[in-house]
Amino acid sequence: MIEERIKSHIRDIPDFPKPGIIFKDITPILKEQSLCSAIVDAFVEKIGDLQFDVIAGIESRGFLFGLMLANRLNKPFVPIRKVGKLPHKTIQQAYELEYGSAVIEIHEDAFEPGAKVLIHDDLLATGGTVMASSMLIEKMGGEVVGYSFIVSLRFLNGWQQLETYSNNVYSLAEY
Amino acid sequence: MIEERIKSHIRDIPDFPKPGIIFKDITPILKEQSLCSAIVDAFVEKIGDLQFDVIAGIESRGFLFGLMLANRLNKPFVPIRKVGKLPHKTIQQAYELEYGSAVIEIHEDAFEPGAKVLIHDDLLATGGTVMASSMLIEKMGGEVVGYSFIVSLRFLNGWQQLETYSNNVYSLAEY
Repeated sequence: MIEERIKSHIRDIPDFPKPGIIFKDITPILKEQSLCSAIVDAFVEKIGDLQFDVIAGIESRGFLFGLMLANRLNKPFVPIRKVGKLPHKTIQQAYELEYGSAVIEIHEDAFEPGAKVLIHDDLLATGGTVMASSMLIEKMGGEVVGYSFIVSLRFLNGWQQLETYSNNVYSLAEY
Repeated sequence: MIEERIKSHIRDIPDFPKPGIIFKDITPILKEQSLCSAIVDAFVEKIGDLQFDVIAGIESRGFLFGLMLANRLNKPFVPIRKVGKLPHKTIQQAYELEYGSAVIEIHEDAFEPGAKVLIHDDLLATGGTVMASSMLIEKMGGEVVGYSFIVSLRFLNGWQQLETYSNNVYSLAEY
């Protein structure tokens, strides 16, 4: 039910960001607030009674529903950002992209060691940034206890990689 | 009251992003959900009965409270992003930075011509990106009817510039 509503508000963009990729554009979802509310409701239901301390949202689109979900569940929200954006002292994690590499960061005081962390992003594709985020959480002494995504591209291999950290992969719509 | 709560959760970071600038770090706010809820409540009260159709949030930190506010007020949310991030057809606006220039974009179908738009970001400083966003909204045939910011740096000159578009500048904490 929620899956069909989400899919009807996702726009396929061929050849973005490069030839051969069909990009799933979630921006039409953001225009319909009854759907945005239903997405938060659906996450709350899927997450159920999982025990966790913090939601870490990945820049930029993970900020959208990440903070709404954190607010609803009364959990601290901490941003994971591209290098150079966070102003306080950070811990970094480099990772490989198809061409070249990238670095993400989190504030070193984002959470206490031992914290149980739920990682949120809008969409899971190959999982490169999400895996790097998971490494970052562990480097900080945190424990990744779950993931939430509006959309997962199951035909890519991101999902299996994440399960090395946690089997709790909550996604609302799958392709 | 809300202003003091916000200020007590803002961290001054000297010399970020460059020497001589004291950066106002809002990330401690995101850890306290009762404050996040109070911020949304305060925006709703300030905005009052302003008539508008769309909230445009500026990447990245404008995504955080922008979507929450849109959701609360049942208005469509549209993202304004740095060039190259939005997948569908866009309208662009270049603007000058202290060193060099930048380009922001919005989807060309973000709203209908004539739409009344509230622009949201976390913090108003010199107002460069917010002014460029305002130009972008007008280029799209929209009308800027207000601005919402968690924090405004009144000692800079951003505020006066914005008033060429709209006098409705809603900010919750000022320096």
